[in-house]
Amino acid sequence: MIKRCMLAVGMGLAFVGSAGAAEKVDLEMVGKIRQEAFHRSQVMDTFSHLTESIGPRLTNSPAMARANAWTRQKFGEWGLVDVHDEAFEDFGRGWEFDSASVEMLAPRMAPLYALPKAWTPGTAGTVEGEVVKVEIKKLADLEKYKGTLRGKILLLGDAREYKRGTEPDSHRHDATSLEGLQTFAIPGGSDTDRAKRVKEFAERQELARATNAFFAEEGALAALSISGWDNGIIRVGGGGSRKAGEPVGIPELAMIAEHYNQLARALEREQPVRVRVNVAARFTDDSDQPGHNTVAEIRGSGKADEIVMLGAHMDSWHTGTGAADNAAGVAVMMEAMRILKAVGAKPRRTIRVALWSGEEQGLIGSQAYVARHFANYPEPTDPAQKALPASLREPTGPLRRLRDYEKFSVYFNMDNGSGRFRGIYAQENIAAMPIFEEWLKPFHDVGATTVVSRNTGSTDHISFDRVGLPGFQFIQDRLDYFSNVHHSNLDTWDHAEPEDLKQAAAIVAAFVYNAAMRDEKMPRKPLLED
Amino acid sequence: MIKRCMLAVGMGLAFVGSAGAAEKVDLEMVGKIRQEAFHRSQVMDTFSHLTESIGPRLTNSPAMARANAWTRQKFGEWGLVDVHDEAFEDFGRGWEFDSASVEMLAPRMAPLYALPKAWTPGTAGTVEGEVVKVEIKKLADLEKYKGTLRGKILLLGDAREYKRGTEPDSHRHDATSLEGLQTFAIPGGSDTDRAKRVKEFAERQELARATNAFFAEEGALAALSISGWDNGIIRVGGGGSRKAGEPVGIPELAMIAEHYNQLARALEREQPVRVRVNVAARFTDDSDQPGHNTVAEIRGSGKADEIVMLGAHMDSWHTGTGAADNAAGVAVMMEAMRILKAVGAKPRRTIRVALWSGEEQGLIGSQAYVARHFANYPEPTDPAQKALPASLREPTGPLRRLRDYEKFSVYFNMDNGSGRFRGIYAQENIAAMPIFEEWLKPFHDVGATTVVSRNTGSTDHISFDRVGLPGFQFIQDRLDYFSNVHHSNLDTWDHAEPEDLKQAAAIVAAFVYNAAMRDEKMPRKPLLED
Repeated sequence: MIKRCMLAVGMGLAFVGSAGAAEKVDLEMVGKIRQEAFHRSQVMDTFSHLTESIGPRLTNSPAMARANAWTRQKFGEWGLVDVHDEAFEDFGRGWEFDSASVEMLAPRMAPLYALPKAWTPGTAGTVEGEVVKVEIKKLADLEKYKGTLRGKILLLGDAREYKRGTEPDSHRHDATSLEGLQTFAIPGGSDTDRAKRVKEFAERQELARATNAFFAEEGALAALSISGWDNGIIRVGGGGSRKAGEPVGIPELAMIAEHYNQLARALEREQPVRVRVNVAARFTDDSDQPGHNTVAEIRGSGKADEIVMLGAHMDSWHTGTGAADNAAGVAVMMEAMRILKAVGAKPRRTIRVALWSGEEQGLIGSQAYVARHFANYPEPTDPAQKALPASLREPTGPLRRLRDYEKFSVYFNMDNGSGRFRGIYAQENIAAMPIFEEWLKPFHDVGATTVVSRNTGSTDHISFDRVGLPGFQFIQDRLDYFSNVHHSNLDTWDHAEPEDLKQAAAIVAAFVYNAAMRDEKMPRKPLLED
Repeated sequence: MIKRCMLAVGMGLAFVGSAGAAEKVDLEMVGKIRQEAFHRSQVMDTFSHLTESIGPRLTNSPAMARANAWTRQKFGEWGLVDVHDEAFEDFGRGWEFDSASVEMLAPRMAPLYALPKAWTPGTAGTVEGEVVKVEIKKLADLEKYKGTLRGKILLLGDAREYKRGTEPDSHRHDATSLEGLQTFAIPGGSDTDRAKRVKEFAERQELARATNAFFAEEGALAALSISGWDNGIIRVGGGGSRKAGEPVGIPELAMIAEHYNQLARALEREQPVRVRVNVAARFTDDSDQPGHNTVAEIRGSGKADEIVMLGAHMDSWHTGTGAADNAAGVAVMMEAMRILKAVGAKPRRTIRVALWSGEEQGLIGSQAYVARHFANYPEPTDPAQKALPASLREPTGPLRRLRDYEKFSVYFNMDNGSGRFRGIYAQENIAAMPIFEEWLKPFHDVGATTVVSRNTGSTDHISFDRVGLPGFQFIQDRLDYFSNVHHSNLDTWDHAEPEDLKQAAAIVAAFVYNAAMRDEKMPRKPLLED
């Protein structure tokens, strides 16, 4: 997921409803699905291959292309049809890195731990220089550094005070915390916040472009910024620019707080600080390239033109192996498809899986897919709006519904780490809640019990939700997703839970099968913009 | 401290006693001490210099020598007398490292995070090789690898399963946990455990020597072992050998679990694994050198030949900056001496501070000091006993008490991280407890309230305790000492608590002043061996 969803925990009552007609669940099929998922699981094989053989999968990187190819191959082996990559336009350039090293030379010799921001250039060998602190908060700040940065290595900001961990790293839901999710928080204000966020986003983008160009023109050798988290963890996303023709700036690395702070304090003490940097990183394209989602199907029979979808983003950040974020989701969605084939499911509707790309840069792959297949808003003409990722844009006019809009039933997404499913967010689709209640009953014994009305955000189901199509994510135990692994170098195999991934795959397989079999498509909530 | 002390928490009653005569405390002086400690503190300046300007201080490394020199200089500036380094014999060679890098080349390119074990050789440039797994648990295991390791990089053991953090990283005592420390656990068995530990230690040493020699003879390029902790932390001590003439083996590094496990799993999947290693490390002596404790005094008047001591080990492991372990203790003990000079204290007894070396390798510096100045057991003749660090040896005959044995009053030590003092362990010296109760009263308002009878172990007060001299450590909030920093690359400035160090310095200054002023020396407990 692209950013942390805030869980406003409160007290509330469970919605206990019943559909007009009792929701039928084929428990015999659910039993087969459970058995295949729990006793003949391949989810960890898939997860291992994605994380450890392919590695991190930055959008448009060579590793992402390998992931597209390998997942197509697996889908083919499992007997899925219409297996293909579907391009979305103009994502930008690919980028990858092999190694990065930083050494302190003064005030004393010591190795420092830092990793590059994505889409920043490598150093072309070892560079070495004096460290100077630079604080750029607005465009006018650039001026004061003019002529001072040549041959320097830049420290981007102050030391940050260490924040003690007062909660356990890892967290699982209990009855109380699940109960807390039942409360729906009625929105307070207007859309001012959204407009403010959009404005700030645009300003940040402009400042970043100007800063990148400035540092390069001034001849600074490299820049160091502090990791987003403490405790030796490197948490970092992108820098530079993925867009061909835009300034990529200078090599920039995120350093563990414990090392960054040492450099910053030495400068405060007016000790000369020198470091040596070597980053082997490269852009893998000269021009902007489309991104690619991988898509495959089990064709339905009877209602084959109606579509049930499941998916997860396969792209990741680059310093870990994209394990909890989001090989977990990909492995579960792939496993759900494998299970359905293995148990010989013959769905009425077509079941389609999509492994998205470009999620980390703003749900770009899923948004483009929805726009192309189901519905879209007119392209904005305002250049400020045009510059935003589609997920941040204001609706620019009435929604254009395409042919398959009415054929679409529901989309299920997974992107909250590898933690066990505990239920589902109904995303204010009140009519869907009693249906989910019934579907979850055969999974109460493995901990998935809870249907809540509230929304959860910030990942690919939103691309469906914002055009009025039912798109859902599950409630998951968060484990150490937000303490150790999210967008960090620790997002690796070890922090995942095999049993939880098996459980999730069983539930997804059952949910999409149920959705593909029921007489009606999933109910929809009204589209706010209509 | 050299190893984790187990806190058997139980319920119990506080000892509430009173000395025969009421213990007099000079509250006016305590007030001055508090004011100097809290409002004109220099403890963080000292702490910063030790950790960040000098850096980690492995025993006999050049940095340790710089720490000896700098602390002597500070003691001199503050007006202490008889400032000198006192050598202890035959510690071994010095060692230091500048940088270390490991890159995975296959199954894919990626930087790996690892740091060298102390006293292992560097690589003399970049080496590159195939990774093979090696399991050496006993001498006979070496045979099966004969002729197979040339040009290889060795993985020393299996992947380790990730252990989720179910407690907060950081911990402070509350009334309940302090109450729990009041229980004294009566020892159960015999000395069999001790004999077993000694035997195992000797066997491990022998296996390590043989393995080092074997790997070098076979021509393996380097060895990788897994860090002692998860979550990207590198926790590691020494390897190779610090003794001139002993086989130092091959370059050996401890790698974060999240990376080590990737290599181990790739080998389990029978994927070829290649890595590139570069370690800039070196022995800084050709022959064994003595270690050095730094010692200084405030001379007493009236009872100047009687001695009150305070101290902390200044040596550290090498991957962090030796901050919580134990620049914290050193800075506090130095600050206590500075405070006493600053407030114009005129103690009756001589107050002597010692900054120990060789603690991490078995309390070697403090043990040698005690043996030379106060009391010692005859040198063992059994070669097995001779090979052990003195702290592990069995008593070899009646204790030889030296002239100053009877002149000695008490020793206070600090070596449990930077956490706030909450009281003191009386080390079964029941007669000392009511004295400590009185001494702590002026510090109840800053959280130090509790005197417990139990022992705490594994650091330099034990060198006094084992010859029957009163030696004590304080109860401290453990903070993240045992979760993040102990012997790890995160043992750095940021994880320390400035307020807590100020509090500790005030209490130590008051305690040593009280000890230097009271009419009697501190009561002693009987020596078990007598």
